[in-house]
Amino acid sequence: MIRIIVDCFGGDHSPEANIEGSLMALEAFPDLHLILTGDEGIITECLSGRQYDASRLTVVHAPEVIGCDEKPTDVIRLKKESSMIKAVRMLRDEDDIAGMVSVGSTGALVAAALTRVGLLEGVIRPAFCPLLPTMKGGIVGICDSGANVEVTSDYLKQFAIMASLYLENVYDIPRPRIALLNVGVEAGKGDTVRKEAYDKLSALPCINFVGNMESRDLLSGSYDAVVCDGFSGNVLVKTTEGTALELLKKVKDTIFSRAIYKFGALFQKKMFADLKAFMNYQNYGGSVLLGTRKVVVKGHGSSKAVAVEKCIEQAYRMVAGSLSSKIEDALDKYDHYE
Amino acid sequence: MIRIIVDCFGGDHSPEANIEGSLMALEAFPDLHLILTGDEGIITECLSGRQYDASRLTVVHAPEVIGCDEKPTDVIRLKKESSMIKAVRMLRDEDDIAGMVSVGSTGALVAAALTRVGLLEGVIRPAFCPLLPTMKGGIVGICDSGANVEVTSDYLKQFAIMASLYLENVYDIPRPRIALLNVGVEAGKGDTVRKEAYDKLSALPCINFVGNMESRDLLSGSYDAVVCDGFSGNVLVKTTEGTALELLKKVKDTIFSRAIYKFGALFQKKMFADLKAFMNYQNYGGSVLLGTRKVVVKGHGSSKAVAVEKCIEQAYRMVAGSLSSKIEDALDKYDHYE
Repeated sequence: MIRIIVDCFGGDHSPEANIEGSLMALEAFPDLHLILTGDEGIITECLSGRQYDASRLTVVHAPEVIGCDEKPTDVIRLKKESSMIKAVRMLRDEDDIAGMVSVGSTGALVAAALTRVGLLEGVIRPAFCPLLPTMKGGIVGICDSGANVEVTSDYLKQFAIMASLYLENVYDIPRPRIALLNVGVEAGKGDTVRKEAYDKLSALPCINFVGNMESRDLLSGSYDAVVCDGFSGNVLVKTTEGTALELLKKVKDTIFSRAIYKFGALFQKKMFADLKAFMNYQNYGGSVLLGTRKVVVKGHGSSKAVAVEKCIEQAYRMVAGSLSSKIEDALDKYDHYE
Repeated sequence: MIRIIVDCFGGDHSPEANIEGSLMALEAFPDLHLILTGDEGIITECLSGRQYDASRLTVVHAPEVIGCDEKPTDVIRLKKESSMIKAVRMLRDEDDIAGMVSVGSTGALVAAALTRVGLLEGVIRPAFCPLLPTMKGGIVGICDSGANVEVTSDYLKQFAIMASLYLENVYDIPRPRIALLNVGVEAGKGDTVRKEAYDKLSALPCINFVGNMESRDLLSGSYDAVVCDGFSGNVLVKTTEGTALELLKKVKDTIFSRAIYKFGALFQKKMFADLKAFMNYQNYGGSVLLGTRKVVVKGHGSSKAVAVEKCIEQAYRMVAGSLSSKIEDALDKYDHYE
């Protein structure tokens, strides 16, 4: 049995979406046990009348609420009975709980995971690795997308090893093509950190390093993961999402601006629905946090039930694929390659 | 008379596009004099049979060709008779030449501009400031987009002052809304450089600083310019262009995948043409290099005639608006504000 905690509060659609997503995951994985944290009364009310295997679902009361503007350090110190911090503490203390999923505050989650759960043996810093859909129908991981606004080339080397193992073990991608985000494809581009990282990644025998990648090629399908500092990774992910959404809105507004365009669109309804689904990050799960001692998955604050279910599935597959011990083994073996 | 040099070689469509764009600019601005550098025989042949005011166009022979893989420092040292380096040297030496336009190698152009033309009084580093179209029909500047892969908060302060004056004087935008690219909108986000820059920009009375901007909001129309290091600025610009192009291609491919979608698209031909034109960077000019002693504009390597004409127009308006002396005055007055 794989035991995972779901923080049921904190997102725009919580707790309903979190609970609904949990029930979907329970249905999908017969050896999954979920622990839901949050206000027990509200969770029980949401669950009443629903069909599910009650022997595989536990509710843990955690009534405190985290405000939007609260500092991560205050949250950890003062909100011990909040759904997120309670989940983090149980993850730390109970050996048979393997992972957690949250759609709450990113800053609080990273800080709590670092200080309470801790890192895998050999890991310098954890890194987020969200996925985006490529134009060829696959996915591409971005590591790090925001846990570290500043990095060294040694961080980047570890991000590459962790992202590669993640894609191989959770998404069954053999020898993932790993690139370094840079301002040009030629070797020798970028700042000192990037130049050093290029050399270190080139020397690593355990990853399939394919060189520098320019951001315009992220969605091309030529890469399985791109390694970067959390600042530019954040820019990369949010620009892609922002541009896609703005552009689809622009197409929609333009269609509605003239009757003849609207008439044409009558024949394309399914097409636009498919395109919207294709660009909808809700369908690609959350940002997994790579490098923590136990599995931590952060969903978008706006996650609906299907997105929460995907996050739980990611956590489940990371546990089932023994990702943590594979990362420890690889770092032990390859971290001193230069 | 405003005298500007056009480097006629180096782009994908040179010299034809460069020459055609030059003739368009000459037609548009009666007080513009252009000097074209490059192989005189080829340029003269392209010009033969064309109608233009020959008294406002001079051809300067510069036959050497710059290879794709040549190092910027080698280009400056060894290719003195190339169209780009000849243009840079004339810009440096001849007082009555106010600016230059090139679609050649970015690295060589920045290096040559720095070492041969030099910087305005008070400027620490020059910065590129390309423009992208916003969804509200306006434009947004990104400064720096790649001239400095590493920055300090003092660089960012100068980029803000220069970008603000550029948009005000060249695009008639009163009190441009200047934002700082960051991983979140709240004050206190980001690394040390960003935190320091936030405070310095907030204290500057000569700009309209509106706070941090997340990259997903670049095209929203809520900002006139965003200030950033050249690494993340490069990611920002290329991700936006890349995502827009990939998405439009995806829409096109999807339409062609089914007869009924194609039938619907028959009613939307003009719409897709308009959308393509809207997202086409060729219509928004080049990357002006802010902070150099004389005006330098870098066009996309793939610039066609209309893009070259826009670049010349940008250079012309920067000269006509006395941007250089305004930047010097502002830096003299405000650079020590903290």
